[in-house]
Amino acid sequence: MVPHLVTALNGPLLDLEKKILAATPAIERWFRMEWQEHTPPFYCSVDLRNSGFKLAPVDTNLFPGGFNNLSAEMLPLAVQAAMAAIEKYCPDAKNLLLLPELHTKNTFYLQNVARLMQIFRQTGLHVRLGNLTEGVTESQTLELPDGTSVTLEPLQRSANGRRLGLENFDPCTILLNNDLSSGIPSILENLNEQNLLPPLHAGWAVRRKSNHFAAYDEVIKKFAKLVDVDPWMLNPFFTKCHQINLQEHIGEEALASSVSSLLSKMRKKYKEYGIKEKPFVIVKADAGTCGMGIMSITDANQIKDLNLKQRNKMSVGKDGLPIHDVIIQEGVPTFEHINESVAEPVVYMIDRYVVGGFYRVHADRGINENLNAPGAHYVPLAFAQQHALPDLLAKPGTTAPNRFYMYGVVARLALLAASLEMEKTDPNPEIY
Amino acid sequence: MVPHLVTALNGPLLDLEKKILAATPAIERWFRMEWQEHTPPFYCSVDLRNSGFKLAPVDTNLFPGGFNNLSAEMLPLAVQAAMAAIEKYCPDAKNLLLLPELHTKNTFYLQNVARLMQIFRQTGLHVRLGNLTEGVTESQTLELPDGTSVTLEPLQRSANGRRLGLENFDPCTILLNNDLSSGIPSILENLNEQNLLPPLHAGWAVRRKSNHFAAYDEVIKKFAKLVDVDPWMLNPFFTKCHQINLQEHIGEEALASSVSSLLSKMRKKYKEYGIKEKPFVIVKADAGTCGMGIMSITDANQIKDLNLKQRNKMSVGKDGLPIHDVIIQEGVPTFEHINESVAEPVVYMIDRYVVGGFYRVHADRGINENLNAPGAHYVPLAFAQQHALPDLLAKPGTTAPNRFYMYGVVARLALLAASLEMEKTDPNPEIY
Repeated sequence: MVPHLVTALNGPLLDLEKKILAATPAIERWFRMEWQEHTPPFYCSVDLRNSGFKLAPVDTNLFPGGFNNLSAEMLPLAVQAAMAAIEKYCPDAKNLLLLPELHTKNTFYLQNVARLMQIFRQTGLHVRLGNLTEGVTESQTLELPDGTSVTLEPLQRSANGRRLGLENFDPCTILLNNDLSSGIPSILENLNEQNLLPPLHAGWAVRRKSNHFAAYDEVIKKFAKLVDVDPWMLNPFFTKCHQINLQEHIGEEALASSVSSLLSKMRKKYKEYGIKEKPFVIVKADAGTCGMGIMSITDANQIKDLNLKQRNKMSVGKDGLPIHDVIIQEGVPTFEHINESVAEPVVYMIDRYVVGGFYRVHADRGINENLNAPGAHYVPLAFAQQHALPDLLAKPGTTAPNRFYMYGVVARLALLAASLEMEKTDPNPEIY
Repeated sequence: MVPHLVTALNGPLLDLEKKILAATPAIERWFRMEWQEHTPPFYCSVDLRNSGFKLAPVDTNLFPGGFNNLSAEMLPLAVQAAMAAIEKYCPDAKNLLLLPELHTKNTFYLQNVARLMQIFRQTGLHVRLGNLTEGVTESQTLELPDGTSVTLEPLQRSANGRRLGLENFDPCTILLNNDLSSGIPSILENLNEQNLLPPLHAGWAVRRKSNHFAAYDEVIKKFAKLVDVDPWMLNPFFTKCHQINLQEHIGEEALASSVSSLLSKMRKKYKEYGIKEKPFVIVKADAGTCGMGIMSITDANQIKDLNLKQRNKMSVGKDGLPIHDVIIQEGVPTFEHINESVAEPVVYMIDRYVVGGFYRVHADRGINENLNAPGAHYVPLAFAQQHALPDLLAKPGTTAPNRFYMYGVVARLALLAASLEMEKTDPNPEIY
């Protein structure tokens, strides 16, 4: 199924699509060279926003759920990419320990876990699931809607304390599908003999969005030069604001002033390109995920006028953790619709390869709102369509494969940024 | 489209499918480890025969045409595999010189060339075509049915004589899609600064089927142990017979005696498994391709009774080259049909990855005949179908993805054999 592309591209983004398609060999070679220098994250999903006048990543997830939402036709692509990834970290790997989130009642999430197990089995691994809940000693079997089940098993450190595994299961690689929002469990510390992927500093206990988007700035500077476009076409302005506490009115003025200056930078760009939309910014927790602690603002004065409910919402993230540091990011409206609903593309990658994607669709949200919220549903991106390779003969802006190729390029720019971010924030950098 | 699987599997092959599916993690890990030791051919297609009681490769092509017959949905898999391959040989590659066959009037073949160019462009390469015709000095543009065209350009050696390229085009890698049946052109000799892929000794000027199937024997010995099956289930008996000349009745008795002894080995196996079919052997040129110089024999006496036309047919291969060396291979009837026509699967690989396949279908041929003949047509294998990963819950022998997975495994066994074959026949082996 190809979602109907309601906005046939025109204006600036049409030009971007043309430039990206024409520069394909140069772009792919550039990525190939970058991946010689930088190690891609093991896996990653990127939320994109396509406003018709710009196309930008707004969230880069290093512990992607939602593999169950990818079209089944594209699974062989995921298996192939996972084979390449595994070979890199542990070519003789036999066992993989997967550590999922503890959303044990969320059958959508459990289907994601089952899908990941299926993918890694096909790469030649025995996959078992570990339970990150502290102190748990019993296995727990969870039923899936298709009648199958998955089993979470208690974790064990080896006798010498150096390795992590399960009963009768010594993995070469430990794959986290848990974003560590609530901190780093002590059982994951000091595992020097096994590959722990992604590394602990990729988890939200340590990671900061502002580091990611700073790295993305760097990536885009180089890429925009390569394809000869204004970097702003691919990059939302952002700034960070630390040590605020909206419940206690701390740092409110600094936040309002940052919002105000970002909005005025946006107005200049909107004027330059003749864009009639009303600029807005997104304020969100610098650490954290799951669509929590996010607000959309069109005027700096809105900050001081926030009501108590809004202040509370902006003060607590996933797992009830307090929010004191935020980033303010240029809002990119999404002009893509599926039927009557607002949609945004999400692109999935394993190692350096795009392996699929879907549209996140929300019937009750506007074009300038966060769609990662209860009520969202998912429509697989049509990477699997006939002529899934770019069609150079097609009229620009009219074919799905050409647009999806562009999405894949921008998602990989965010992937590369995540790679730089991980290098820069590594607490124990390797010296070469 | 899934071709109707007329023979639901039963008997020995059903058991093989079960064993292969159950052993998937072990099989994939085994391949992973083998590819640590051996370099896969750059690309490869394998003709398989599924008789219901055995599944075996009957031809391993190291210069595959027919990429245009793969389903378009699966092209991203080919691109991803090609990325991995290119990265291995020349990570900073910018230019690829592709040297096709000189079938300039065969628009099917030209579509294969165009498809290969499209795949490699997506991996970040500028691709141009060189003309292997000796003495040609002009470019030649050839029209394709879809209105596009491809251009064959004259080859040039660099001023110092060390490199091969085109005007203003210095490639890092030269990819042969020409099987060199008529010998190694001198312009391809002594290219030590560029990657020439596949290597010259993969071409039919040097290559011998008997070396390939000897290597396949070795591979199957190990694999059959891993999955606990009779190696014969996956491996056709073969023997070779050199220095014959059927036109001049030279070596006829030796050939008849080899045929006779192979048929009696087969009869024993047929008896062991209760197979009611009439055994037959295929006699074919030890060097050569394109379905030429092949005959199907059920009785050794047929050799001395060959008529003049048959003798002539068996004496001349592709490009009119004389045939003096043959291999005699156990015939594997194909029990797969599409509509009323006999069909055999062909699996395509790039580097170590299965990237697609199709059924070769021939309306006018029998189950014990060669289908690679004028009148054949091609139906893409449904690797792209829903649940393209093996379905472990399905009833054995009933689902296409499970069968295609088994095909992919056997095709990769032939790929591995080709890798061993290339190592053993390398005229300049690298010493490690």
